[in-house]
Amino acid sequence: MQPLSSLLRIDKSDRQPVYLQIANQLTDLIRTGIMQSGYQLLSSRQLAEAMDIHRKTVVRAYDELLAQGWLESRAGSGTYVATHFPEIKPQPISNGGKEIPNTKKIAGFSFEDKPYLRRAVLKSMTSLRLDDGFPDPRLAPLEELSRAYRTQLLTGNSYVKLGYGDTFGAQWLRQELSAYLNETRALKTLPENVLITRGTVMGLHLACTGLLKKGDNVALGELSWSSARMNFIQAGANIFDIPSDEYGIKVDAIEAICQKQPLRLLYVTSHHHYPTTVALRADRRLQLLALSEKYGFIIFEDDYDYDFHYLSKPLLPLAGADRAGMLLYCGSFTKTISPAFRVGYLVGSENVINHLAQIRRIIDRQGDNMLENAMAELLQNGIIQRHLRKSLRTYRQRRDFFCDLLKSELGNYLDFQIPDGGMAVWTRFDPKIDLGTLSQKAHQKDLYFSDGADSNTLSPKLNSTRLGFASSTQDELEQSVGIIKKLLEQSS
Amino acid sequence: MQPLSSLLRIDKSDRQPVYLQIANQLTDLIRTGIMQSGYQLLSSRQLAEAMDIHRKTVVRAYDELLAQGWLESRAGSGTYVATHFPEIKPQPISNGGKEIPNTKKIAGFSFEDKPYLRRAVLKSMTSLRLDDGFPDPRLAPLEELSRAYRTQLLTGNSYVKLGYGDTFGAQWLRQELSAYLNETRALKTLPENVLITRGTVMGLHLACTGLLKKGDNVALGELSWSSARMNFIQAGANIFDIPSDEYGIKVDAIEAICQKQPLRLLYVTSHHHYPTTVALRADRRLQLLALSEKYGFIIFEDDYDYDFHYLSKPLLPLAGADRAGMLLYCGSFTKTISPAFRVGYLVGSENVINHLAQIRRIIDRQGDNMLENAMAELLQNGIIQRHLRKSLRTYRQRRDFFCDLLKSELGNYLDFQIPDGGMAVWTRFDPKIDLGTLSQKAHQKDLYFSDGADSNTLSPKLNSTRLGFASSTQDELEQSVGIIKKLLEQSS
Repeated sequence: MQPLSSLLRIDKSDRQPVYLQIANQLTDLIRTGIMQSGYQLLSSRQLAEAMDIHRKTVVRAYDELLAQGWLESRAGSGTYVATHFPEIKPQPISNGGKEIPNTKKIAGFSFEDKPYLRRAVLKSMTSLRLDDGFPDPRLAPLEELSRAYRTQLLTGNSYVKLGYGDTFGAQWLRQELSAYLNETRALKTLPENVLITRGTVMGLHLACTGLLKKGDNVALGELSWSSARMNFIQAGANIFDIPSDEYGIKVDAIEAICQKQPLRLLYVTSHHHYPTTVALRADRRLQLLALSEKYGFIIFEDDYDYDFHYLSKPLLPLAGADRAGMLLYCGSFTKTISPAFRVGYLVGSENVINHLAQIRRIIDRQGDNMLENAMAELLQNGIIQRHLRKSLRTYRQRRDFFCDLLKSELGNYLDFQIPDGGMAVWTRFDPKIDLGTLSQKAHQKDLYFSDGADSNTLSPKLNSTRLGFASSTQDELEQSVGIIKKLLEQSS
Repeated sequence: MQPLSSLLRIDKSDRQPVYLQIANQLTDLIRTGIMQSGYQLLSSRQLAEAMDIHRKTVVRAYDELLAQGWLESRAGSGTYVATHFPEIKPQPISNGGKEIPNTKKIAGFSFEDKPYLRRAVLKSMTSLRLDDGFPDPRLAPLEELSRAYRTQLLTGNSYVKLGYGDTFGAQWLRQELSAYLNETRALKTLPENVLITRGTVMGLHLACTGLLKKGDNVALGELSWSSARMNFIQAGANIFDIPSDEYGIKVDAIEAICQKQPLRLLYVTSHHHYPTTVALRADRRLQLLALSEKYGFIIFEDDYDYDFHYLSKPLLPLAGADRAGMLLYCGSFTKTISPAFRVGYLVGSENVINHLAQIRRIIDRQGDNMLENAMAELLQNGIIQRHLRKSLRTYRQRRDFFCDLLKSELGNYLDFQIPDGGMAVWTRFDPKIDLGTLSQKAHQKDLYFSDGADSNTLSPKLNSTRLGFASSTQDELEQSVGIIKKLLEQSS
């Protein structure tokens, strides 16, 4: 065997301490069988001299390995590779003796790929954007939120406040949310009916994990939110696609399914159907509830943008008319504050909420106590409510301004209906326009909008996309539409 | 039919606005078939007079229902229940005509109970506690964290910082963590090998969802963390229990399993075995890695308390010696700061990390950008590292003080080994002592400690429990031991 010092390499510019570099390389030499059980190491003094480092560094490395059992010390004799190791056949150090990183590009085991989870990453780092329908965080009560968070963090009994909490979420927020939902949505909940989540997607994941079995039948709009579809596929559900029209999903199609096989769950965005923004008409709502009772399927009502309705009268959620306990109602603060605040809620019968709270334990244990309590404070003080009134006014103005622009500037290229609520316009482009190319060219001009690939899976192709107006000022909206107009004029 | 006004009830003390109370009750009357299609409602003026409320309130309720399609307005004639409703057979309003809450105790559908997820809720609201091994948040750099969080929230481009981010976690934290893990644990990771999670439990949940199939064989210590076991059961795994001794889990038992059937994954807390606190000896580590390569099973290394080791030389994680890409390494800030800060990490081969980041999308979409960036700042500025050095000193003193106390005051009643690391002592009580009764009596004296039910599932019963020392001052530890001593003296 070569002299020990020649097998070790030290890089003083490395952030890893030298003693750890040595210790790690020594274990590698033992592991690969190059240094066998019983091999006597150089004394720390000898090795330090050979490598021109401080003796203390070598002692520290040896001590480390003695404590771990790699080496053993024999009184008056020196330091040896421990004898309890199995004999290991030396393996050639590949890579020409150079250090091999121990984290890899490709794992040593295989796993089933899940192509249905793959999704183009939306990176809207452009200055301008007509997004999927996100709020404008410049309007959000961030200063108030920051103060409330700080109070939660620094006051009170830190062991209790910063320790493990309830898997249901912070009790204060459950109370405030229950009252808030009862007031604004004509629900009649108790705090026991409310489970705090990390947003709508976790509500879906909990329902899928807790209420679905592999092979269960699940129905949702043929056009609907991709993360809902992904969750149902992951749960092993059989998926039935429901067509929709200008009054929302077609409820007759659901009954047709129920007549042939048991349906376990229906997913619906009743308030503003995603992506087309239309509301589910009242008679269909009634019919849906009646079907759910008759056939015994769960309704998962995703009411992601209830608070953003521009007529004076928002449609009350289905959940308020559910007498049979068939409904799970889901919402979040994503549209209220900003997507980064991962706080949402699930509302349902108490036994279901208890069941899903148990599942919560194995997903992420619990939410963020400090943030949940800060949100509760903002609800109690009416700050969220005031912010909603203010942003609703602003977004209504932006919607009107944007729709006027779309009509006057782009009326020859696209068609749309003015949405009654939400933060985006569902636009249908002229079939001659290639949305993929247009979106790419806009990106080069520092404007992001989606090519609608998620929504154009149907045949014939809809050539549609959502253009969000809420996160841009009127000036930004004008610039954005100007860019699209110029690109369309150039290519026609 | 009774006059409309007699069917409606208004409660002005209710937080729900009166117009919503009316609108909601009207839809109920339609839904239950009491008001049929074509029924003419009182005019808003008539109803307002009959109910002694402002006419505007009634108009608002009617407008709401007109917009939702429950009612229709016929020019010059009045307001009617819409004609497009199917005929509904009137249902008796149960509950003597009183309002029925629309959220229930019991759902209208059934679901499979998951008894393995049920767990007694640990509520440590007592003044004193010897917990499972939690840190003392009174020592944590909360002021610095609060400032960093505030900076993240209020500065920079809010659309980018508070919008949707990467499912991998904040890039800055991935970089800082990669460097930190390389320095402290002799890993050789790149940021691409790091996925930010909400803590160890989410790391497990991601691995279960992404890498296990129903029926896969999984091995873990016969005594181990209950949340790990729950996750494997939920994933439908066949579980093999591995016995352990004073050197950690018995690796020979794992090979015996592999010889009979394919093993997919081994879960191990190599640094300090949970709950017994012993470290996996170096030769067993080697043997484990060799077995993993030979039989192709994944090692999930949960290194929950690596940073808390009281000898000068912590055992390096298995992950540092993994040349074959068989390892997933998992850690969190739970022990560093406090359980409420739900930030952790998974380290693995890049293709596995990419795969698990896709699954992350359907669980909670992403972590808390602001908190993750704040943690990155604290790592970059060395604040976490300084805090770790400081708390390590404090916890070592508390361990020594506590172990001295246990020996001198309770030596007749229990037995233990001084742990080399972690935040709890694994104590074995005299078989004559009933831990359940003792724990309950202590609770009445304002002291919490676990009765060890989670750890006493084996036969013969171990009569053991973990007593955490890190979260209590010396004074609090003295009081706590005093209470236990008094209770034991009284009952003997």
